[in-house]
Amino acid sequence: MKKSLVALAILATAGVASAQSSVTLFGVVDVNYAHGSGSGVGSSSKSQLTSGGYNTSRLGFRGTEDLGGGMSASFWLEAGINADNGTFQATNTNNQANGASVGSGLTFNRRSTVSLASGLGELRLGRDYTPQFWNQTVFDPFGTVGVGGSQANVSSLGGPVSVRASNSVGYFLPGNLGGFYGQFQHYLGENNKNGAATEKDGTGSAIRLGYANGPINVALATSSTKYAATATTGKIQSTNIGGSYDFGVAQAMALVTRDKVDSVPTNVTGKGALVGALVPMGAGQIRVAYSTYKTDAAGTPKSKKWALGYVHNLSKRTALYTTFARVTNSGGASQALNGAVTAVNARSTGYDFGIKHSF
Amino acid sequence: MKKSLVALAILATAGVASAQSSVTLFGVVDVNYAHGSGSGVGSSSKSQLTSGGYNTSRLGFRGTEDLGGGMSASFWLEAGINADNGTFQATNTNNQANGASVGSGLTFNRRSTVSLASGLGELRLGRDYTPQFWNQTVFDPFGTVGVGGSQANVSSLGGPVSVRASNSVGYFLPGNLGGFYGQFQHYLGENNKNGAATEKDGTGSAIRLGYANGPINVALATSSTKYAATATTGKIQSTNIGGSYDFGVAQAMALVTRDKVDSVPTNVTGKGALVGALVPMGAGQIRVAYSTYKTDAAGTPKSKKWALGYVHNLSKRTALYTTFARVTNSGGASQALNGAVTAVNARSTGYDFGIKHSF
Amino acid sequence: MKKSLVALAILATAGVASAQSSVTLFGVVDVNYAHGSGSGVGSSSKSQLTSGGYNTSRLGFRGTEDLGGGMSASFWLEAGINADNGTFQATNTNNQANGASVGSGLTFNRRSTVSLASGLGELRLGRDYTPQFWNQTVFDPFGTVGVGGSQANVSSLGGPVSVRASNSVGYFLPGNLGGFYGQFQHYLGENNKNGAATEKDGTGSAIRLGYANGPINVALATSSTKYAATATTGKIQSTNIGGSYDFGVAQAMALVTRDKVDSVPTNVTGKGALVGALVPMGAGQIRVAYSTYKTDAAGTPKSKKWALGYVHNLSKRTALYTTFARVTNSGGASQALNGAVTAVNARSTGYDFGIKHSF
Repeated sequence: MKKSLVALAILATAGVASAQSSVTLFGVVDVNYAHGSGSGVGSSSKSQLTSGGYNTSRLGFRGTEDLGGGMSASFWLEAGINADNGTFQATNTNNQANGASVGSGLTFNRRSTVSLASGLGELRLGRDYTPQFWNQTVFDPFGTVGVGGSQANVSSLGGPVSVRASNSVGYFLPGNLGGFYGQFQHYLGENNKNGAATEKDGTGSAIRLGYANGPINVALATSSTKYAATATTGKIQSTNIGGSYDFGVAQAMALVTRDKVDSVPTNVTGKGALVGALVPMGAGQIRVAYSTYKTDAAGTPKSKKWALGYVHNLSKRTALYTTFARVTNSGGASQALNGAVTAVNARSTGYDFGIKHSF
Repeated sequence: MKKSLVALAILATAGVASAQSSVTLFGVVDVNYAHGSGSGVGSSSKSQLTSGGYNTSRLGFRGTEDLGGGMSASFWLEAGINADNGTFQATNTNNQANGASVGSGLTFNRRSTVSLASGLGELRLGRDYTPQFWNQTVFDPFGTVGVGGSQANVSSLGGPVSVRASNSVGYFLPGNLGGFYGQFQHYLGENNKNGAATEKDGTGSAIRLGYANGPINVALATSSTKYAATATTGKIQSTNIGGSYDFGVAQAMALVTRDKVDSVPTNVTGKGALVGALVPMGAGQIRVAYSTYKTDAAGTPKSKKWALGYVHNLSKRTALYTTFARVTNSGGASQALNGAVTAVNARSTGYDFGIKHSF
Repeated sequence: MKKSLVALAILATAGVASAQSSVTLFGVVDVNYAHGSGSGVGSSSKSQLTSGGYNTSRLGFRGTEDLGGGMSASFWLEAGINADNGTFQATNTNNQANGASVGSGLTFNRRSTVSLASGLGELRLGRDYTPQFWNQTVFDPFGTVGVGGSQANVSSLGGPVSVRASNSVGYFLPGNLGGFYGQFQHYLGENNKNGAATEKDGTGSAIRLGYANGPINVALATSSTKYAATATTGKIQSTNIGGSYDFGVAQAMALVTRDKVDSVPTNVTGKGALVGALVPMGAGQIRVAYSTYKTDAAGTPKSKKWALGYVHNLSKRTALYTTFARVTNSGGASQALNGAVTAVNARSTGYDFGIKHSF
């Protein structure tokens, strides 16, 4: 294969008033070997090459236009890749179980937004992360990604909007409030208004407020999403609070979460917690976390996870990493790691090692 | 449609003979709040955050290579995005009802072509707009997009090729004919030739000829596409003529369309019409149109739409917009707006307001 | 395959220390008119506008980061386009028949990898070509693409991994071994380890070793992939050897392949061969090949193909091409060209002419 490379730069933007304009093409390709094993009757282990052990593989396009007078417009389109096999992650069109996108092709599941921003903050429309998700990832040393990701996120009863919502209108506080930050979001389930009990399914609101200054970061988020009450679902209220403090030798993190599902005849409440730390080690970083999630459903199922990992940065874009995790179950839970199957109330262990490259 | 595209120019072209070459990455992210309501028994309203109220959201890649001697080669790949939830619009592989693409992933449904051009015109191969579509959008103040889009397009009996065709060979007249322009297209249904009545389904030809000079633009298009005759379909012939005149204070537009479907035992003919105008208002533009479509099917169903909109340009790339529309039905029609459901012969109203950002 | 690729310089990549970084956006749009005809009872012909008669249409993103000390990291994401209708080619997630990706949307089916390279070679993770494929394409004047592509590839019993494998770990020898080159690959089927006969399905290993120096190029590849034995499949072992010699007036090529499937109650072995040549003709190139494939299944089916083509380069990026091919069948085979259907033991002919444009 003979290849000739053509270097392109953005020289001019025909017909655009603002002198400067840019589109950024960005992404991550993260592939790892992952192994999981279970225990007990019916358990099985699994070995795989998988995607996103450290950072989720992705491809995105984004840009900002300066509108003058302190205003700007921007867009952000980002797709999650399963880089081990070339397929893509699914999105959800209506924040309901029946809205999962069909097929393995590229969707901008991670984010698909247009924004207007000024000194008063940012207005953002489209598919975006929900306020109730951010604390789950910001205050998890593993960022909810890979085998070590917080059990409070893995087992969450938060439903289809626990990470992202489609059809959302978001407002973000401006960045100059002395460390205070915040986000409000309203999202629509988009069912026809026809008197059905389910007509508001998938519609909800959420807010997150926080304070970050120097070594400290703390934030509270709460959300309420409507679903008609059945034996397995109902209105979901998720609330969480997290914080981190950077001691220099380590950044300590803690998180508490609560999800309440108004199912019938009885509500179900889930409670999660995490404590962890990021410890710099020269060009690398040790990651450690203990996380739990339990619900008051029949048997009071509970899962606890220990996770320990190391990331070795070859550059700011490229890293080698490895993670080991163990989850223990009780009360009827059977959480397993890396695709393994484990018996009820039995342990599962998993590990991975891989390469992350961003661009 | 105003668009500003980000032009990427080549700085160095190692190993490529031609001195000049470029690839353009372009797109639109347009998200709006849209509401529709119906009336009568069984009607329902709908509120949604949706995509493409002013310009269809899209992501595209295109480029042109100068081959010397007045010749050039080019490509154009363009995907339609549902930016409210990150999914993509479907394409159609064979210009037949059974050729709809599967899944929600990215397809280059809007255009997927390779071209050779010279002073004699352009030869274009692939998936492209059909000649019978162009007048529908060029002479509609709403460009067939959003809640205000022409009823002559919305209700059209033009079938799977009323907007685009796959497997097409197109020829475009060169641009130096003193204002005269034209396009011929032949597209293939690609069924095996085996004696079946349906073997030519999806195969057709179309032509469009026009004249644009100063304030005037007028064009005629006609097409014929083969489908085996059944109770609901048959050979489709679509013909339309449109024109616009720019008076300065306003650009007036008019369109007349006719679709004939050779179904059995009786043919069905649909007739559409539109009058409208674009009125500049400082940095903005008022859009207004009245459009109709009726057929001679049982009951002679007819739908009439009034639409009024305003676009406020924050820059050449970014705009705020709002549109209000009302459709009235008779003869058994039940057209509704923005996802609402309306009773037979009842009204539906809809509006939207949103942000369009192009790159 | 000559390609000219377009590199986009990233103007700003927040958080990246390295002063230099680049992402390459590249692709091919190749569309052609293709006709195939069969013969005998039940035969049918087909006319189509199709994609990839000379080079497979594609869109890709790739880049390399210099890590210093002779090391580098890189990524490669490449999707196969059906440019005649805007859909995309499917991938396979687990190297098994049930792993075909769902839908028509973009997947990085052609390649999805992250790599680390140094003077010791390259480690590559993800979805990639298999070692057993390369000789099939390198030593075929038609590169396994279009109506003239080698029958040894078209009829191959090599199974889901005959071209690419997902979940692969690959190692490539460095480029400074005096002409010797080589690749080792291990790929995983990723089934749970649960005692089922099929638990290793889709897992395999392959190796390719070759020598290229001046006019000569020769390589051997062999692979073994596990599938539980049934009447139609079982462990697949594919081995091939190919070579080419450039005499200046023509580059001659030859290839021999063998696939053994351990099905029950009897194994099936397939054997393929090809001889061909590429003949430069000014700005163009004549391509000619004779290829065969036969198996020892009931009746000993055999197919033989003659193919003759011409490529006229308008530039290094753009070409016009045409190909004519005829396949003859015996022993119960009924291979047909360009979508035609032919009777058992009957002939099929096909031709195409098209435009290829790369960027």
